[in-house]
Amino acid sequence: MSRSNILAVDAMGGDAAPEAIIAGLEIAAERQPKARFMIFGPEARIAPLVAKTKRLKNQCSLHNASDVVTGEMKPTVALRMRDSSMRRAIDAVLNNEAAGVISAGNTGALLALSKIVLKTMKGIDRPAMAAIGPSAKGDVVMLDLGLNVVYDSRNLVEFALMGEVFARIALGLPKPSLGLLNIGSEEGKGDEILRSAAATLRESPIGGQFYGFVEGHDIAAGTVDVVVTDGFTGNVALKTGEGALKLVGELLKRVFTSGPLARAGYLLARGGLQRLREWLDPRRYNGAVLLGLNGVVVKSHGGTDAEGFAHAVDVAMDMISNDFNSKIAEGLAAMDRSILASEPSGG
Amino acid sequence: MSRSNILAVDAMGGDAAPEAIIAGLEIAAERQPKARFMIFGPEARIAPLVAKTKRLKNQCSLHNASDVVTGEMKPTVALRMRDSSMRRAIDAVLNNEAAGVISAGNTGALLALSKIVLKTMKGIDRPAMAAIGPSAKGDVVMLDLGLNVVYDSRNLVEFALMGEVFARIALGLPKPSLGLLNIGSEEGKGDEILRSAAATLRESPIGGQFYGFVEGHDIAAGTVDVVVTDGFTGNVALKTGEGALKLVGELLKRVFTSGPLARAGYLLARGGLQRLREWLDPRRYNGAVLLGLNGVVVKSHGGTDAEGFAHAVDVAMDMISNDFNSKIAEGLAAMDRSILASEPSGG
Repeated sequence: MSRSNILAVDAMGGDAAPEAIIAGLEIAAERQPKARFMIFGPEARIAPLVAKTKRLKNQCSLHNASDVVTGEMKPTVALRMRDSSMRRAIDAVLNNEAAGVISAGNTGALLALSKIVLKTMKGIDRPAMAAIGPSAKGDVVMLDLGLNVVYDSRNLVEFALMGEVFARIALGLPKPSLGLLNIGSEEGKGDEILRSAAATLRESPIGGQFYGFVEGHDIAAGTVDVVVTDGFTGNVALKTGEGALKLVGELLKRVFTSGPLARAGYLLARGGLQRLREWLDPRRYNGAVLLGLNGVVVKSHGGTDAEGFAHAVDVAMDMISNDFNSKIAEGLAAMDRSILASEPSGG
Repeated sequence: MSRSNILAVDAMGGDAAPEAIIAGLEIAAERQPKARFMIFGPEARIAPLVAKTKRLKNQCSLHNASDVVTGEMKPTVALRMRDSSMRRAIDAVLNNEAAGVISAGNTGALLALSKIVLKTMKGIDRPAMAAIGPSAKGDVVMLDLGLNVVYDSRNLVEFALMGEVFARIALGLPKPSLGLLNIGSEEGKGDEILRSAAATLRESPIGGQFYGFVEGHDIAAGTVDVVVTDGFTGNVALKTGEGALKLVGELLKRVFTSGPLARAGYLLARGGLQRLREWLDPRRYNGAVLLGLNGVVVKSHGGTDAEGFAHAVDVAMDMISNDFNSKIAEGLAAMDRSILASEPSGG
């Protein structure tokens, strides 16, 4: 059996683990009959849950791991734990037993363990975290989302390259457009790091897809398919946008429950309103991807339910079956050749 | 006549100047019968517009200024223009003829001119731009919004202090709470600049109002009354939040015009939906304030209409009549005494 359909699963990460994880895998198993899951966790707790499933029990293997990385645990503590479900799931990728790993657990620990065990891809300085969100023109990829507070222009160029490949696979676009997040769209805006990254991208093999600088409002407007930024800004922007959407959702709920007329109005417009709510549903965008590691690593939101976890599994299987990491490597090689070629004249 | 009710107005700033500016002043004049406006611009264009007003014509004086700072003009070019409506309006504050100035024109030029003409307040290193936005718990102040890309921890502390005074006046809160925008709420999160600013604020006279670190989603949640951040992050966060709200607005419009049932639903829930739209209306939040200059300087959005400009005038009059700058100076003095007092033990 090729390992290109095998995902290692940390069954103990997230607020509702392991129940929501196993229930999510059952949903994913039904949607993806060819997927196989290596499930890591305390067998005594996991086995009874799996036994109750219809599909999953025929598409998975159980692997006992006695320790659990908790949400509050420092990464350094998690690193010392040899038999945690998170560590063992990552080890499965290292040992070529699985093509990728998914966890809804501690983000810092997942990153630290993945970097130490799987190592950063050749040619990539820092891994980045990417996620997909809604925009007026379809889905939009944003990265980095918080892994890198300190960065230089080469990091931003790498993020752009990885984001481009990710958008090709996850959004199914042959030539996704890219923008660098800035506080103005004019060429002179922003600091030297941003201007230098823009100059490199313009001359790169994906220069034709590079739109230039974009601003905060361009994210939801869908001006570009991939928004590239440093981890601090990306983290703040993602959470600010989510917060604004949540605010409107709560206010709309208040409006539609404010009296009998409003309630009747809701019933009449329900079809469209429900489609809108489903479209903006954070669960539909669950599954942030750690890019730039030797293996596919997907982080599910810790607070998600089974449906949200299943979506993150879909993202991981997409990355695995499309051989994401080979495509990143190809893109890097092309980029490096182009940078070397332009070195004599470049700044 | 005390100058504490006199606002200098650049009539030529913004996309719909001077018509929208004069129409906005007419609305503001009706709401604030004691306000007096010194209007700067080409008299031949402005006088006929003012002559047609009911209230404004009795509450203003016209001052001919022949040049116009355009939206695309570089600040260095605007600085060389001696008779622009923007420059002359700022000069009126310097000459003690007006207590503040308002412009819907070029932000970079307004900042450069204000800094050169009015100078930065004693004790303030860099001015900041603040604005008010909606949250689940009422209005929230955010600053800086783009003036300062480079910053240090002292700047953030100054922003917090100025934001605190601004929130007291603009939101009418006796003790507004403050948060520093970060990518996590734990004490160890963020870079050294953020951690050092947090430590200083905790020990400061407004330490009791300091909540600690907040994240992007806390802005719309209204976790604190004042969100303090650097200009790059603040600019991106503000525009990202605005973009998300705009996206939902457009999608809702699509839902409610998608068919006869949805249209009928809208009519039934119209009261609440309109109140919600009005509450989230960007015009209601128009009027960003440049804090830390010797004089009140308010920047209206360039694309706003008369109603939006009138709101920005309200903000400016609020600042003027509450003697904003004296309160900032008092806060700074208290802060400096406290920092000096804690110096021997401080880091």
